[in-house]
Amino acid sequence: MSDRPATPLLDRVSEPADLKAFTDPELTRLASELRAETISAVSVTGGHLGAGLGVVELTVALHAVFDTPRDKLIWDVGHQCYPHKILTGRRERIRTLRSGGGLSGFTKRAESVYDPFGAAHSSTSISAALGFATARDLGGTCEGGLGDAIAVIGDGAISAGMAYEALNNAGHMGRRLIVILNDNEMSIAPPVGAMSAYLSRLYAGAPFQEMKSAAKGLTQLLPFPFQEGARRAKELLKSVTVGGTLFEELGFSYIGPVDGHDMEQLLAVLRTVKARADGPVLIHAITQKGKGYAPAERARDRGHATAKFDVLTGEQKKSPSNAPSFTSVFAKSLVREAEADGKIVAVTAAMPDGTGLNLFAERFPRRCFDVGIAEQHAVTFAAGMAAGGLKPFCAIYSTFLQRGYDQVVHDVAIQRLPVRFAIDRAGLVGADGPTHAGAFDVAFLANLPGFVVMAAADEAELVHMVATAAALDDRPSAFRFPRGEGSGVEMPERGQPLEIGRGRVITEGSRVAILSFGARLPECLAAREALLARGISPTIADARFAKPLDRELILRLAREHEALITIEEGAAGGFGAQVAQLLADEGVFDAGLKFRMMVLPDTFIDQDSPAAMYAAAAMQAPDIEAKVLEALGVARITARRGLA
Amino acid sequence: MSDRPATPLLDRVSEPADLKAFTDPELTRLASELRAETISAVSVTGGHLGAGLGVVELTVALHAVFDTPRDKLIWDVGHQCYPHKILTGRRERIRTLRSGGGLSGFTKRAESVYDPFGAAHSSTSISAALGFATARDLGGTCEGGLGDAIAVIGDGAISAGMAYEALNNAGHMGRRLIVILNDNEMSIAPPVGAMSAYLSRLYAGAPFQEMKSAAKGLTQLLPFPFQEGARRAKELLKSVTVGGTLFEELGFSYIGPVDGHDMEQLLAVLRTVKARADGPVLIHAITQKGKGYAPAERARDRGHATAKFDVLTGEQKKSPSNAPSFTSVFAKSLVREAEADGKIVAVTAAMPDGTGLNLFAERFPRRCFDVGIAEQHAVTFAAGMAAGGLKPFCAIYSTFLQRGYDQVVHDVAIQRLPVRFAIDRAGLVGADGPTHAGAFDVAFLANLPGFVVMAAADEAELVHMVATAAALDDRPSAFRFPRGEGSGVEMPERGQPLEIGRGRVITEGSRVAILSFGARLPECLAAREALLARGISPTIADARFAKPLDRELILRLAREHEALITIEEGAAGGFGAQVAQLLADEGVFDAGLKFRMMVLPDTFIDQDSPAAMYAAAAMQAPDIEAKVLEALGVARITARRGLA
Repeated sequence: MSDRPATPLLDRVSEPADLKAFTDPELTRLASELRAETISAVSVTGGHLGAGLGVVELTVALHAVFDTPRDKLIWDVGHQCYPHKILTGRRERIRTLRSGGGLSGFTKRAESVYDPFGAAHSSTSISAALGFATARDLGGTCEGGLGDAIAVIGDGAISAGMAYEALNNAGHMGRRLIVILNDNEMSIAPPVGAMSAYLSRLYAGAPFQEMKSAAKGLTQLLPFPFQEGARRAKELLKSVTVGGTLFEELGFSYIGPVDGHDMEQLLAVLRTVKARADGPVLIHAITQKGKGYAPAERARDRGHATAKFDVLTGEQKKSPSNAPSFTSVFAKSLVREAEADGKIVAVTAAMPDGTGLNLFAERFPRRCFDVGIAEQHAVTFAAGMAAGGLKPFCAIYSTFLQRGYDQVVHDVAIQRLPVRFAIDRAGLVGADGPTHAGAFDVAFLANLPGFVVMAAADEAELVHMVATAAALDDRPSAFRFPRGEGSGVEMPERGQPLEIGRGRVITEGSRVAILSFGARLPECLAAREALLARGISPTIADARFAKPLDRELILRLAREHEALITIEEGAAGGFGAQVAQLLADEGVFDAGLKFRMMVLPDTFIDQDSPAAMYAAAAMQAPDIEAKVLEALGVARITARRGLA
Repeated sequence: MSDRPATPLLDRVSEPADLKAFTDPELTRLASELRAETISAVSVTGGHLGAGLGVVELTVALHAVFDTPRDKLIWDVGHQCYPHKILTGRRERIRTLRSGGGLSGFTKRAESVYDPFGAAHSSTSISAALGFATARDLGGTCEGGLGDAIAVIGDGAISAGMAYEALNNAGHMGRRLIVILNDNEMSIAPPVGAMSAYLSRLYAGAPFQEMKSAAKGLTQLLPFPFQEGARRAKELLKSVTVGGTLFEELGFSYIGPVDGHDMEQLLAVLRTVKARADGPVLIHAITQKGKGYAPAERARDRGHATAKFDVLTGEQKKSPSNAPSFTSVFAKSLVREAEADGKIVAVTAAMPDGTGLNLFAERFPRRCFDVGIAEQHAVTFAAGMAAGGLKPFCAIYSTFLQRGYDQVVHDVAIQRLPVRFAIDRAGLVGADGPTHAGAFDVAFLANLPGFVVMAAADEAELVHMVATAAALDDRPSAFRFPRGEGSGVEMPERGQPLEIGRGRVITEGSRVAILSFGARLPECLAAREALLARGISPTIADARFAKPLDRELILRLAREHEALITIEEGAAGGFGAQVAQLLADEGVFDAGLKFRMMVLPDTFIDQDSPAAMYAAAAMQAPDIEAKVLEALGVARITARRGLA
């Protein structure tokens, strides 16, 4: 506790309404304290740092000017919300961020009335804010009341089609709605795309100095006791706003650029907008990701996401790793394949670092495409390249691939185009929680005709699956792998294409067969050890493919064992369901089979360590052991023996 | 055959290359013949008429100027491609459009090398074209070669986020790429949104007259033997182009507006672009949907989609209907609920007519929202309204809901917001074929925690499900129903909310239970008749809910019958998979159960009549009967008897 910063003003804030009592200069000092508290907290918890530091002044100004929770403040993505959480009654718990039982690393409705609409995926805020504005105008009622709707969205997030759809609709509707474009010239990676270049030109065209003097003028006019003052304020603001045509054409009043770290400017502009907006308004605020913390400002990613760190030095405390991460194994394998095959290209939707494709981009800059936060386009762009004879790998997290689902169906699967999907973050992901869980991809891919769907049991398998996908040129394929480190298995020199639709038996046993799809395999092997101690020797198999299924293997396992248990890191309807369909079609259930499907439970599991989340999901070794015992009907007997 | 139009020029065209021999005035006359042939063909087949008539001149001009199939011509949506099909070797088969074994009503790779990228859903063309352009520049190879990539996209389609994502990426990349914005001021419905208004302003600002005289000047300069001529052509074009800032800001050269029915203008502009484009170019062509056929021009929807019709009068030959369509039952039920509850609002993504919400909009104009082709926004906008205390019904076809899948997961399900999804066109849809099949919604919804997922067995059930969804205020819900007419059952006066997670038994029987989810119920009852004749009296039950399942009912059916067969109009991984999960969890398979899941087969089924498609899917009454016999092991015996 001793190294916590002194925060005399912040200590007086228990809810945002307390900010109304502060003078403007006090609000500026409050922002400094809030910044220090944010840095201190994240140094303990790890998490998203840079984005929060960039919006400290904006957070204070918004809460000082608007009346939350009546006014609905919606942070896009939500990873910049730590300062907001500190101001909205969650300061006590801020050092539990992203840990089990603690605060979410994103905004979350269940957590606070000050989070009217949760997030984690990007670009949803304008749609949601328009929903609240519409509800307000149509007599909706909700906790806290319904006032202004304010979306705060980054320049990266606004490159997504969804944000454009919302702007297009909001500009057309003409309802009062406030969008704050938080332009830090960084999404997770440096942003790409024509919109980003456009925003930079706006920024370059307007020296802050003018907005600064306008803000002074506005401040003198505020708080608009008279109609005349209000009119003059609006004119003054208009006179220093340059550009923004694109937003004006879409029906928004554009104000900016505003210096997002200058409290005086922010307060003046927000107060004017609050008093005068009569339709959709876009305020273009320029901020700096990582602002005010030198190690973050210096970092290439501006301190986007960090482990726990030393506040003084900025040095991150990473736990030593024993095995390479799945992500890096994927990336290196893909580079190796691409060295041998000039037709291989790679696509990422604004996640070059997260997917490991930065490695690929360094080696093959012309063959790597970061399309921005634009998963729909990413998938169909890849489909176009496949139709043109290239071999695209589309590297997208499981949870974000949901954004391109229709494109996977309509452009890839129906046309049977050989796009390869590298699906990272399959299964439960830890600190990022339920919004980032890769729970549904097997279910939504394995029923698409023609698809090949694989899951890597370990990092060596992943190497082979990259090679398999590279070689598979007549249909679409996907391979999934989890977040985090591999299990330290021996790595092959070079990937070898797997036989399509062929699994492998790891250990032959009797009575019960455990058929694993994906990275629960080590847990299955651990369960086997425990079962051996009970005199049960299970057969353990790695399915490798959810589609096409290894029919021969599965039917043999069913025939030769009393019980068959499938396990996968995904929701119901996926691998196990495909196996059940096969068994039903073949009449295998007719004569009796102790069949079980271990899938993620029918709940969204809150953030925790991955191991704790898998324990909550009942998918660890003891759970597998218990499932075997239950299926074989020996559990109760064992329990009785224990009692006897 | 006698009423076919005279087409002396068109008769000389067997492939697009033949157009190179035509003079410009001949191309104009060819367009007239092509229009007449298109009208004649659609009068016989029914289908999309208005869109094709709007692009007759464009189709001729594009094929005359560019070198297809080397140049990749990609029609967005593809419903405007009938004239294109006539010119590209498919004239002989044009009167088989949309029928079983005939030509697809959309572009389709499997059908022709002149369809380099198939479509049916909107807004994919720019992404695909950018893929081809990239493949060209990176040494990709494909059938026909790789030249220019040309996307033709409507003003409705460009309102979708996906198109914006593609423009944003293409403008940034700077590759040579040609986008033709086919602005007919109509998508399926009159387009909405700020972008549409922007395009109208461009159109209003630029009299065609100037472009017309510029085209004359261009024609004199063509075919650019000298560098100087080319430079002057570019300048001339630039001088008459007004506006387009929005596209210019996104990195495109904007040319327009061009009169899309003036062959001279089109040819001159396309030739100049072909000769001179050195980056992404957007040509803004103004066309008229339904152009040149008076009955279409007069129609409110400009002849968007039509039944077979009389060419002279335009009168459509609709078959008399015996029962109301599911769509109209939904719409009327929703209006009735909304009359009783002022909080009910409705959202459509550019399909007010298709979803029946035009009825709702007439009755409650302020409570109905057409957001344009923008399913992602539609879903989250509805989620925002739900969070604000309204009761949103989001009416989206099953196949298009795929576009908003991530929003369903992330914004609706995780937050447990009571958005109601009315899912029309569930199951196989007939003439629109595999791209429009509603095959996957049950699989992608029923594993989302907290969701309520229903399917209507008939039109009376649909009435109750609308009431159920209206009353369900603590979690998200969805109800699906098929395309077409109901089965003519007696209709309730008013919908009654169903008990959540409770199915119903239609007929009690023995040995085998058939558990239907959705509108195969009449087929199950027909199968029952046939089985009764064989001395088998099946229990028939209507599950009503895929989530939550009626555990009690299902476990009872499994316990009391030798065989249990599920049936649903959806792909594997859906309702049957949920039932299998329950049965496995409960150990029901242990002692043997003749369990079968009837689902759509693992193929994309080509267009035909819905009955023929369901026959191909083996989901008609005889198929159900056969499945029962197979499960009970009596099929073979019966066959032997037949032989004996």
